[in-house]
Amino acid sequence: MKKKSFSFSTASVDYFFDADFSYLEKLASKESTVVITDDHVFAKHKKKFKGWNTIVLKPGEEYKVQQTVDVIIDQLIEMGADRKTTLVGVGGGVVTDITGYVAGIYMRGIRFGLVPTSLLAMVDASIGGKNGIDVGVYKNMVGLIRQPSFLLYDISFLQSLPRNEWQNGFAEIIKHACIKDAAMFRHLQQHTLADFRKDKKLLAALIQKNALLKTKVVVADEFEQGERKLLNYGHTLGHAIENMYELSHGQAISIGMTYAALMSQQLKHFSGAEEVIALLHKYGLPTYAEFDGKQAFKVLMKDKKKDNVSINYILLQKIGKGVIQPLLLVQLQELLRSDFK
Amino acid sequence: MKKKSFSFSTASVDYFFDADFSYLEKLASKESTVVITDDHVFAKHKKKFKGWNTIVLKPGEEYKVQQTVDVIIDQLIEMGADRKTTLVGVGGGVVTDITGYVAGIYMRGIRFGLVPTSLLAMVDASIGGKNGIDVGVYKNMVGLIRQPSFLLYDISFLQSLPRNEWQNGFAEIIKHACIKDAAMFRHLQQHTLADFRKDKKLLAALIQKNALLKTKVVVADEFEQGERKLLNYGHTLGHAIENMYELSHGQAISIGMTYAALMSQQLKHFSGAEEVIALLHKYGLPTYAEFDGKQAFKVLMKDKKKDNVSINYILLQKIGKGVIQPLLLVQLQELLRSDFK
Ligand SMILES: NC(=O)c1ccc[n+]([C@@H]2O[C@H](COP(=O)([O-])OP(=O)(O)OC[C@H]3O[C@@H](n4cnc5c(N)ncnc54)[C@H](O)[C@@H]3O)[C@@H](O)[C@H]2O)c1
Ligand SMILES: NC(=O)c1ccc[n+]([C@@H]2O[C@H](COP(=O)([O-])OP(=O)(O)OC[C@H]3O[C@@H](n4cnc5c(N)ncnc54)[C@H](O)[C@@H]3O)[C@@H](O)[C@H]2O)c1
Ligand SMILES: [Zn+2]
Ligand SMILES: [Zn+2]
Repeated sequence: MKKKSFSFSTASVDYFFDADFSYLEKLASKESTVVITDDHVFAKHKKKFKGWNTIVLKPGEEYKVQQTVDVIIDQLIEMGADRKTTLVGVGGGVVTDITGYVAGIYMRGIRFGLVPTSLLAMVDASIGGKNGIDVGVYKNMVGLIRQPSFLLYDISFLQSLPRNEWQNGFAEIIKHACIKDAAMFRHLQQHTLADFRKDKKLLAALIQKNALLKTKVVVADEFEQGERKLLNYGHTLGHAIENMYELSHGQAISIGMTYAALMSQQLKHFSGAEEVIALLHKYGLPTYAEFDGKQAFKVLMKDKKKDNVSINYILLQKIGKGVIQPLLLVQLQELLRSDFK
Repeated sequence: MKKKSFSFSTASVDYFFDADFSYLEKLASKESTVVITDDHVFAKHKKKFKGWNTIVLKPGEEYKVQQTVDVIIDQLIEMGADRKTTLVGVGGGVVTDITGYVAGIYMRGIRFGLVPTSLLAMVDASIGGKNGIDVGVYKNMVGLIRQPSFLLYDISFLQSLPRNEWQNGFAEIIKHACIKDAAMFRHLQQHTLADFRKDKKLLAALIQKNALLKTKVVVADEFEQGERKLLNYGHTLGHAIENMYELSHGQAISIGMTYAALMSQQLKHFSGAEEVIALLHKYGLPTYAEFDGKQAFKVLMKDKKKDNVSINYILLQKIGKGVIQPLLLVQLQELLRSDFK
């Protein structure tokens, strides 16, 4: 096990890598802890939860809503949870987002820790303190930025992770490589998804590298004034088409990264677009797609104010170097109409 | 108008005393602001709201719940409120608590300001950043500590405040005097509630003094590790009997202060109990009461953990000096049974 600590604006977060779930007892006593997980994770790892007070949620994004928060709060009251209770979210990004949120508002804020169990949660969702819930069609409309006390990494959870969830995780990993880490980009080129699934050491190292990469970005800019925006690479268009075409998040942002790479080629003389696209493809992610650019632009504009004339778009200057590029909306509209292929 | 600024842990708050509501335009533009108020305040002060996007809530503590939060959030989305929107709560403590809470969670936190319109909100509820909602019978079970950007004091709102609400406000003012300000205690002895209602200058000065007193306590101890607990004088027993006997908050804490003063006499050789009781009485507040001490003790224990053996009770050492006194639960139980009269 490796411990690392990072200082955020109001709190310090301890990361425990290469850990075993049982180590949780050292971080939170069974009597004063409530664990939150979902049906999938609970069913596949029942033994791990033995002896812990556990609230088991229905799985999936459609339950990342206020009604689930209401249910959790009622159960916490029922269980006698108080200011000294620790909440621990054990699950994918839905569980970690909702746990962080409930911990932030219950009795004006109680201690919490996270045990991410999906690849995406390990390298992305559980890191950085953003939490929250969806409201109707609006993702993460309500929430807080508040850091956990600890993150515990036990990669044995990943043995039960479905294949398409691995792809979602790798989409964010490739994103990290594109915006911040050329060496990792090369490393990913030299391996395959199967390699990482087979080789625990290789996988653990990759997860840790990505967790630390995101952490550094967040520590430098916790409240997303600049640098942290880079993490939105592929996400602007990605979010717009995610619901339009019922794509998984990983698939949607992969297409988003593809188009952003092509836009970078046009606007920033970026020479690596083909490599980015090939890497996404190698990890089973879709790249080019038939989509209705006009419609995508509309969706994309939906939550913008009428008087906005430009938008911050994340582009690549080179592999490993993302940049924030203000784009005029008319320019973006034009680009989304164009055929890069 | 007088402006004062105070630095809290993460933000600075501007106070505008002796201000006119119309000054709000200088603090938040009409286009990017949503005002939240309640039916009572809106009906009595319609003109003031002209030109402001306004959400009008049903009045009363029973609406300080999640369902109201849901309605507000839906309306904010409808209105196109975004990260640049400012929320302004114009009302009593229910409105200011709920506005602060919604501003804290909407899009992970947006700017907000408060215009307290009840005496209690002016001297107490709007100050200190605590916000939140009730869950079932549990008051303020969910919420945050997050400071507003500004507080605007326009005492002309008080012209429409019902008489019993004045008493609620004065209960907190007397509380402040008891724990922190002997000179104010004397000042209150020399006047009557009628004096303050008649004389705007006298009233404005009293409100400002109390707002600053609470502010100083909170600035010294924003997250209630010590000093801020003093503000609970009268509230431990008060909260227990508030629901048991359908008392107003002011009435309940007045009885709580009475008994805490008598306990202080016994445990801290406090010599001012009679004066405290006389002052509460002078401002129309109940002091002694027939209540079921055994039942009150039970209610009081309800949200304590089974393994608690003591409780922090606020007592008075002398007038103007509150102290935090750990009391064994058995001791408290005994005291609640005793007849001080
Ligand atoms: N807070 C942030 O900064 C941040 C960043 C990125 C994403 N997110 C959020 O994260 C969510 C997506 O994360 P996710 O993909 O992990 O979602 P998820 O929690 O829905 O997990 C995906 C699926 O995998 C299952 N699962 C998780 N771990 C498993 C395991 N070990 N074995 C078997 N099944 C398992 C889940 O039950 C679910 O069905 C979204 O809600 C997104 O908004 C948040
Ligand atoms: N956040 C804090 O630190 C804090 C501190 C103390 C109390 N509180 C909360 O404040 C609430 C109590 O405050 P309150 O007594 O102001 O409650 P309130 O908002 O319910 O106001 C009391 C009544 O007066 C009415 N009213 C308010 N201003 C008026 C005006 N100018 N003219 C006519 N009617 C007016 C309201 O509509 C309501 O009917 C409670 O919910 C309590 O939990 C919070
Ligand atoms: Zn993502
Ligand atoms: Zn009070």
